[in-house]
Amino acid sequence: MSKTEMKIGWIGVGRMGYQMVERLLKANHDVSIWNRTKAKAEPLAQHGGKIVDTLAELSGVDMLFAIVSEGKDLEEVYFGKNGIVTNAKGKLPKVFVDCSSISVEDSERIRARLKDHGVAFICAPVSGNGLVIKAGKLSAVVSGPEAEAKEAMPVIEVFAPRGVSYVGEGELARICKIAHNVMLGVVIENLIEITLLANKMGVPRHAFLAFMNNGVMGSMFTAYKTPALVNLDWAATFTPELLRKDLDLGLELGREWDVPMPVTAATREVIQQHIGKALSQPNSKEILAQDFAKMAETMAELSGMKLASENKNVGTGL
Amino acid sequence: MSKTEMKIGWIGVGRMGYQMVERLLKANHDVSIWNRTKAKAEPLAQHGGKIVDTLAELSGVDMLFAIVSEGKDLEEVYFGKNGIVTNAKGKLPKVFVDCSSISVEDSERIRARLKDHGVAFICAPVSGNGLVIKAGKLSAVVSGPEAEAKEAMPVIEVFAPRGVSYVGEGELARICKIAHNVMLGVVIENLIEITLLANKMGVPRHAFLAFMNNGVMGSMFTAYKTPALVNLDWAATFTPELLRKDLDLGLELGREWDVPMPVTAATREVIQQHIGKALSQPNSKEILAQDFAKMAETMAELSGMKLASENKNVGTGL
Amino acid sequence: MSKTEMKIGWIGVGRMGYQMVERLLKANHDVSIWNRTKAKAEPLAQHGGKIVDTLAELSGVDMLFAIVSEGKDLEEVYFGKNGIVTNAKGKLPKVFVDCSSISVEDSERIRARLKDHGVAFICAPVSGNGLVIKAGKLSAVVSGPEAEAKEAMPVIEVFAPRGVSYVGEGELARICKIAHNVMLGVVIENLIEITLLANKMGVPRHAFLAFMNNGVMGSMFTAYKTPALVNLDWAATFTPELLRKDLDLGLELGREWDVPMPVTAATREVIQQHIGKALSQPNSKEILAQDFAKMAETMAELSGMKLASENKNVGTGL
Amino acid sequence: MSKTEMKIGWIGVGRMGYQMVERLLKANHDVSIWNRTKAKAEPLAQHGGKIVDTLAELSGVDMLFAIVSEGKDLEEVYFGKNGIVTNAKGKLPKVFVDCSSISVEDSERIRARLKDHGVAFICAPVSGNGLVIKAGKLSAVVSGPEAEAKEAMPVIEVFAPRGVSYVGEGELARICKIAHNVMLGVVIENLIEITLLANKMGVPRHAFLAFMNNGVMGSMFTAYKTPALVNLDWAATFTPELLRKDLDLGLELGREWDVPMPVTAATREVIQQHIGKALSQPNSKEILAQDFAKMAETMAELSGMKLASENKNVGTGL
Repeated sequence: MSKTEMKIGWIGVGRMGYQMVERLLKANHDVSIWNRTKAKAEPLAQHGGKIVDTLAELSGVDMLFAIVSEGKDLEEVYFGKNGIVTNAKGKLPKVFVDCSSISVEDSERIRARLKDHGVAFICAPVSGNGLVIKAGKLSAVVSGPEAEAKEAMPVIEVFAPRGVSYVGEGELARICKIAHNVMLGVVIENLIEITLLANKMGVPRHAFLAFMNNGVMGSMFTAYKTPALVNLDWAATFTPELLRKDLDLGLELGREWDVPMPVTAATREVIQQHIGKALSQPNSKEILAQDFAKMAETMAELSGMKLASENKNVGTGL
Repeated sequence: MSKTEMKIGWIGVGRMGYQMVERLLKANHDVSIWNRTKAKAEPLAQHGGKIVDTLAELSGVDMLFAIVSEGKDLEEVYFGKNGIVTNAKGKLPKVFVDCSSISVEDSERIRARLKDHGVAFICAPVSGNGLVIKAGKLSAVVSGPEAEAKEAMPVIEVFAPRGVSYVGEGELARICKIAHNVMLGVVIENLIEITLLANKMGVPRHAFLAFMNNGVMGSMFTAYKTPALVNLDWAATFTPELLRKDLDLGLELGREWDVPMPVTAATREVIQQHIGKALSQPNSKEILAQDFAKMAETMAELSGMKLASENKNVGTGL
Repeated sequence: MSKTEMKIGWIGVGRMGYQMVERLLKANHDVSIWNRTKAKAEPLAQHGGKIVDTLAELSGVDMLFAIVSEGKDLEEVYFGKNGIVTNAKGKLPKVFVDCSSISVEDSERIRARLKDHGVAFICAPVSGNGLVIKAGKLSAVVSGPEAEAKEAMPVIEVFAPRGVSYVGEGELARICKIAHNVMLGVVIENLIEITLLANKMGVPRHAFLAFMNNGVMGSMFTAYKTPALVNLDWAATFTPELLRKDLDLGLELGREWDVPMPVTAATREVIQQHIGKALSQPNSKEILAQDFAKMAETMAELSGMKLASENKNVGTGL
Repeated sequence: MSKTEMKIGWIGVGRMGYQMVERLLKANHDVSIWNRTKAKAEPLAQHGGKIVDTLAELSGVDMLFAIVSEGKDLEEVYFGKNGIVTNAKGKLPKVFVDCSSISVEDSERIRARLKDHGVAFICAPVSGNGLVIKAGKLSAVVSGPEAEAKEAMPVIEVFAPRGVSYVGEGELARICKIAHNVMLGVVIENLIEITLLANKMGVPRHAFLAFMNNGVMGSMFTAYKTPALVNLDWAATFTPELLRKDLDLGLELGREWDVPMPVTAATREVIQQHIGKALSQPNSKEILAQDFAKMAETMAELSGMKLASENKNVGTGL
């Protein structure tokens, strides 16, 4: 089956999903799209997307993708009253691919239920945010039954052109995504430590981070966090409580599997300090809704520093 | 003065220096080269390099570069019995640029002595190793008197095309290089933690690291360390004791400047555990001469794991 | 009601329970005793204890004490087929006091079920082991409904003469016991760090620990662990896995209540390293059945040291 | 020589020295006393103390004790213009005992200089503060040449009746004192962590600490710090900067001797956070002059808590 013959279904066109579908459409894929708020999907029609009204209308596609917020949302669109499985009438796509970041337990449960319906469940969480997709730099990690995973991977590569890695059976890709987010926490915290140190000693943050980003330690992540650390712009990409949750998931796996993670553990406590500090302030809700990189301000206060924006037009590297 | 008119002197053509000079020569720069072991410099003649016998022969150049192992080596080539300053006879380059990674204290002392001779001292440590230079991906961080730094930067960019960042007066570039190496320690240790976790749960290391390298957390560093973590090849690029030294330098600066560095501190203790474990073994010298990434084996033992090479032909990303 | 008029029931005469009952009997209390293995209770008859065959026989006492291993054991003796509540026939002691170390969740559930039967549930976990009781140095922490707690405290004081502290309603005493065990983990780990350091520098461990025990940092705990650290006697009082469990309970409470615990977190990872190291050895089960203080050997190996017994006849301080 | 025949010299009657001398005098020792501010020594005359005007007047005693603030003070009273060695005129006590807490380096240098004069130098730092001495609970740790140490120990026991431990040659007692103070930092920090946790969950601090102090983890230190943690009385016994210094000394020894100290390292960073937080406040000097236990307030803020005094008349346990 050539790629333009395969019928693709897509559930969820939020900030990330929208752009992923757009990439599929621009590559001439046949995509039928359902979104809870249909209006958000409609602009995709101009690229050839078929916007549907009900999940049941997706039951005839060959491969069904989803990207939603949480495990319970995925269960709802699969098995809820209006869910695709509930309303399938004997016809279902053979392969469901999920690009959401849901828990291992939710993923296991969903896999088991889908298996009862003869559906192969492929986990395909991604590394990156909306800006990363737009820049064509998304990547993904895939697990599940190998044959179906290998079928799905060329499609996934369309929106994750930076690389798609198959890591094994079952929920292993979920583990990899948790591990990935653990590192995200560790790197931002250490980057803050050394940026504050260099800054306090006299190096402008933008100059220090330019060096780091150019160098061997530079990553997409350090680059796109640079404007935040330079100009103190804390518009949220990910909140401190979500980051703490991912580190806790990592630490729980470490505990369960007897793998010591001292650096992860130290990082977690700093995130906790940032959250606790927020809770000590009158506008705690507001602070906790801001980006996790705002930890820099908590750490600065604990370093005897008061940060001010450097008002530099630094790029995101994307 | 156009670049091809400027006369450049170069001291030190070890693994890194050689390639840096080669890049200058290929860009048609006029470079006179001195090396302790002259034979190592000779192949550069075929690219137009002028190999000299004595440091004194470099006293007529416009800008003098050096890259040596330690502060005392730099003092030797500048101020030793056969050193360039000692034998200058009233004529010296106006700008000395040092690309070595030496301590802040050594750098300060050298700067002061050079100043007495009317020479501007520019610190220009780099991010990367020999492979990185070969791949054209070296970057540098620069500090010292601004006017002379700005003169030197276009030349530095020839061998550090990924980016050259000016961070301020004096020894600030040394600080940035220490901070850079602190992050190197933190990232390798955390990468080991999560790689072991994913590996113990069933993900092949090469598959996990492929995902990480493709993703937003991937850096040149994570990529070029991947073959080591996958195939347990511990040929040294940097020893655990040198890494510990750099973390200690960072922690000392943190102490002196009252900047807490909890994640750095936790990392340092793990490196120390690796060193201590090595000292408990009969072949400790051999182990300590291997790459710091061998910490993965110590951490694996503390995770109830025994690593074996995956024998995968993974690239360095360079 | 004078103390000798009050009828006390007691469930569980293991290593600790036996001695607690003995103290009550020696203080002329009227105690009826049930134990799963009746034979273990029988020697208490010579001190005036009334050994009963069934839990139902305890339904006529005024206050019912228990000390068992786990929450499920407590549920069994209270609500199991042969449990006292199940077989009460309308008559039950008004106050149940539990001296076990069970989880907050188990304790809450048991409290709710007892309340349905009009029984007040008092938590009274203790600080100390069998040797501590024998030395008359046990203490306890109490929570639950205040009136009944105040009734129970004079009885608890008989076997916990070092002090009985009322800390509030509900399960708060359970929290205090978890916090207590967190500190136990931190103190042993730090004591090991500094003992190894002093030892490596030339101070015999027995001499160093004598100083520490005499000094302001000395506690019953540091004293009774001294023979283990001096003579490497790892007969278990508490296993590393149980200690890890208690630190994890503490860290989970910290997470739930947003209290950072960086030193606890660092300690937990060292315990994990000890467990992981054990798992790397052929006799891992044996090692993990030994006392948590054996962490000293893991830490020693990570310090380039090989410990040997000092064969010193040091006391436990009890 | 019976104890009342031995002539003792004493330098330094600050808060601690005064009480140490008083104990010697009450035990009928013959003590000649010099203090920089003579008036402070004079009340000791009523107990039989001989107050002298110059250090030279002490040159005829059998054993010379000192307790001063810093290494340079000790060098001053020994080797300064008016120092005892400088003005000895061929006659010097054979044994100098120093109870100060000075650095290993200072101690080594002083030992070497005294040796040139045929004087044996005994290190005898103590565990405790003024209140501890008053309560008769001081202890000491001793190092230096064994014969002279053994002569001095019965005298030291008079003011350190809780126990005097000989740990070996040279400066080893200094090491033990540093290790002791490392544990002091770790214990206060962990005690704060668990006290805040229990407190936030509903346990009054005084009730929690009563339990801890009664229990196996209780020490003189936890007891005499209890009033501070309950009533937020931060009158300084030891400042956070001095505590940080001692942890840094411990960590430096760990580094030098290759002993990992992860829990010490984590503690150090929390102390640093407290200092950094103080530096962020307008009254930083005042805060830094208060007791290190005030870290509890910094930690509370990072836990979303605001502490208030419990106004409880809790004792110090002394």
